[in-house]
Amino acid sequence: MHIPHLHGVILAGGSGTRFWPLSRERFPKQLLNILGEETLIQQTVRRLLGCMTADRIWIVTNHRQAESIQWQLAAWNDQLSPHIVAEPEGRNTAPAIGLAALRLLQEDPDAIMVVLPADHVITPQRKFHHAVVAGTTLAQADYLVTFGVRPTRPETGYGYIQPSLKHPLSKAGRILGYRVTRFVEKPDSRTARRYLRSGRYFWNSGMFVWKARTIVEELQRHKPALFRALQRVVAYSRSSDTGAFARAYRKLEAVSIDYGVMERSEKTAMIPVDFTWSDVGSWASLPEVMPCDRAGNVMSGNIIDLGSTNSVLFGQQRIVATIGLADMIVVDTPDATLVCPKDRAQDVKKVVEALRARNAQEHREHRTVYRPWGSYTILEEASGYKVKRITVNPGKRLSLQLHHRRSEHWVVIAGRARVTRGEEIFDLHPGQSTAIPRETPHRLENPGDQILEIVEVQNGNYLGEDDIVRLHDDFGRPPQQLG
Amino acid sequence: MHIPHLHGVILAGGSGTRFWPLSRERFPKQLLNILGEETLIQQTVRRLLGCMTADRIWIVTNHRQAESIQWQLAAWNDQLSPHIVAEPEGRNTAPAIGLAALRLLQEDPDAIMVVLPADHVITPQRKFHHAVVAGTTLAQADYLVTFGVRPTRPETGYGYIQPSLKHPLSKAGRILGYRVTRFVEKPDSRTARRYLRSGRYFWNSGMFVWKARTIVEELQRHKPALFRALQRVVAYSRSSDTGAFARAYRKLEAVSIDYGVMERSEKTAMIPVDFTWSDVGSWASLPEVMPCDRAGNVMSGNIIDLGSTNSVLFGQQRIVATIGLADMIVVDTPDATLVCPKDRAQDVKKVVEALRARNAQEHREHRTVYRPWGSYTILEEASGYKVKRITVNPGKRLSLQLHHRRSEHWVVIAGRARVTRGEEIFDLHPGQSTAIPRETPHRLENPGDQILEIVEVQNGNYLGEDDIVRLHDDFGRPPQQLG
Repeated sequence: MHIPHLHGVILAGGSGTRFWPLSRERFPKQLLNILGEETLIQQTVRRLLGCMTADRIWIVTNHRQAESIQWQLAAWNDQLSPHIVAEPEGRNTAPAIGLAALRLLQEDPDAIMVVLPADHVITPQRKFHHAVVAGTTLAQADYLVTFGVRPTRPETGYGYIQPSLKHPLSKAGRILGYRVTRFVEKPDSRTARRYLRSGRYFWNSGMFVWKARTIVEELQRHKPALFRALQRVVAYSRSSDTGAFARAYRKLEAVSIDYGVMERSEKTAMIPVDFTWSDVGSWASLPEVMPCDRAGNVMSGNIIDLGSTNSVLFGQQRIVATIGLADMIVVDTPDATLVCPKDRAQDVKKVVEALRARNAQEHREHRTVYRPWGSYTILEEASGYKVKRITVNPGKRLSLQLHHRRSEHWVVIAGRARVTRGEEIFDLHPGQSTAIPRETPHRLENPGDQILEIVEVQNGNYLGEDDIVRLHDDFGRPPQQLG
Repeated sequence: MHIPHLHGVILAGGSGTRFWPLSRERFPKQLLNILGEETLIQQTVRRLLGCMTADRIWIVTNHRQAESIQWQLAAWNDQLSPHIVAEPEGRNTAPAIGLAALRLLQEDPDAIMVVLPADHVITPQRKFHHAVVAGTTLAQADYLVTFGVRPTRPETGYGYIQPSLKHPLSKAGRILGYRVTRFVEKPDSRTARRYLRSGRYFWNSGMFVWKARTIVEELQRHKPALFRALQRVVAYSRSSDTGAFARAYRKLEAVSIDYGVMERSEKTAMIPVDFTWSDVGSWASLPEVMPCDRAGNVMSGNIIDLGSTNSVLFGQQRIVATIGLADMIVVDTPDATLVCPKDRAQDVKKVVEALRARNAQEHREHRTVYRPWGSYTILEEASGYKVKRITVNPGKRLSLQLHHRRSEHWVVIAGRARVTRGEEIFDLHPGQSTAIPRETPHRLENPGDQILEIVEVQNGNYLGEDDIVRLHDDFGRPPQQLG
């Protein structure tokens, strides 16, 4: 059922730290498909499609992830792509939501927004839908509506909401929600236990429903400087001056919508929701959302386990052997492994900070990198050479390009390759190869209807992905940038 | 100082299970260099070279490891190689020692043998040397001498020796050792604690000194059937009928020298040694022989650790991030990772059994395999293709060979390659490549004085290492076998 004037805003920032090494800076949690066939952002879009058409969905993300999000949401790209907003820099939720609200108002002055983080897990869909319907009703009455989740443990990682149970908000005799007495920030563990026992506090899920007009007015009231700055940013965002937009955006006050508006507004309301919710906040939270074996383990990949209990064991192709672990997390990826007790899962971000400090690569990207035409996997990289396996999807082709500082050799291992090399164009089959000298324009294309796979060996004294001159690109990417 | 008639016998069997995944069936502990620049077997040879010349050293190993041992001991190969005995199958220590003793007697009827396992750690060299001198003195008086190590913990993994302290064996007024009251097998932990407290029990280090003649006589007395079988095996071992040797050897009774002879003989003596000794029996024993940091961790490789204590953290190039581990073992290799508590280190062999049961590769060989000409590393292997990096040492070359079922592409990444392809011979430099069709005789050679490295991409429907026909080989390897 589609609700008139309802629009979805998906907040898809995410720094990729808490699920490292499976998540990376350029591949954060919402892009992972650990929980089913679809990734979390795909699941989030599908969740909204129960209430609206794809052209009503907006996605606010950052420039590092925009491309990956676009490929993951390719099924809805035609409708979605004008609504993907790439922040030049994350400035917390208030600027992201304010920007989306102002843009929405220009399209639909009566717009109602459902705001959802891209990386939460919610089941079942039906109950979520009911909550949105109730939220819309309260939003129509100018409330800023939040979804409150009944706590199941004394969690210190969430903010809490105390609803005013004496002031229910009802329609046609049915209670939809409550006015909010107060929002409280993350409590210490004693306070969290008290909240849990009292039964009168709810987790702040970070999901909201409101009129675009209401949130803009409240932003103007409680954060007037931010509001004015956002108006300028919106003007730039529709101009071609991307530099001015970026500069203005970076200057916005980095503040959360909770702290900037919700804690100050008189118009807040909470709907107690009855769907199962998890923000999948760390590796330790996986047992909430994934099936466990009888010993309480969540296991995935090529694991040989002897008697572990209550552990999260995540591998891929390589063998991971675990013996007698209790309450541990082991995550193995092609270039990095994590081992820590469950109760230290929050400290994974410190590892990412340490990697950043030593200017490593392993917090930034995976060995396998997705591109509009397919993907590549770095098999080995060392002084003077790099070996990649490149997968090109049927009918796709890489840009026509050249490199100043490296030569390349291509050996086809599956499918058919159409190679442009200088003036020549020819096809290669499995077991055939070609050499691309430096400075030679070249292009790799998959003209067939099977996957094309090649092994590429690069030689040169500089092998950075930025040694590329794009002469033509099907995907409209800039002349100098990633492959 | 070299002792007349003294010979060394190094027992270099080893199944490669207890240090998995760093050790493998074809690459057991004695071939590892985790403890210094030299591998354990190299250190063991060097230990003996303090008392004898290299041509006095015998090595009993098995056929799977003989080649690797030969390359590791290449510095002494001319003297050693006639003395490397490859068992067709491990039959425990009594057959291995008996065979070595019978062979030695043929060369030197007055031979005295020092028997050392290939994978123990002993420091300092000087004290070891003193023990050998004392052992030789007692061996001259027809004793079967063992080295007893004073226990430092109630270890249940070793056999113990109770010396008869009332019957010291002395020379020139100096006590060299004692007659043995009894050998006891691995005790339970209560008994082990009692042994430790009493101060009258010593660990059986598995090192021995005796006349070849004495041990042969005692073998004949206590294991007459084994003795007779060994005599036949020795006859075969000098003939060219390797099949007969193998068949006879496989039939030998698999029994340890301790159980078969030492526990039964009247001639046993023990020398209490004062060197530091470790059999490096598992990952948990590494802190005995490697430097620990202030938190008690042994760390090696690309580790990012936040606050772990008393743990063994072994990585290589990939990043291993560990947080707050206590008494844990983490070992990361290119194709397999192990995580277990220290007190479960003995169960690593169960993981190896599980791998064997599922017919995996990861217990058998490493991704990097050493060959007489250099090494190769498998970068990726999947249906239809395999990618290897091949390293050829200066002046070396692979066999002249052909493959029935795969083509190969070679791209040079460092050094100079001399390629034989059919009738042609030509040189390739970094960035140059060639294709080798199926059925084409070919050879890769490094004519330079730098390391040669190439990337090889194999294509074909069968990529087993046994698809090889050797037309000529510098290393005398059989026509059909590993590259």
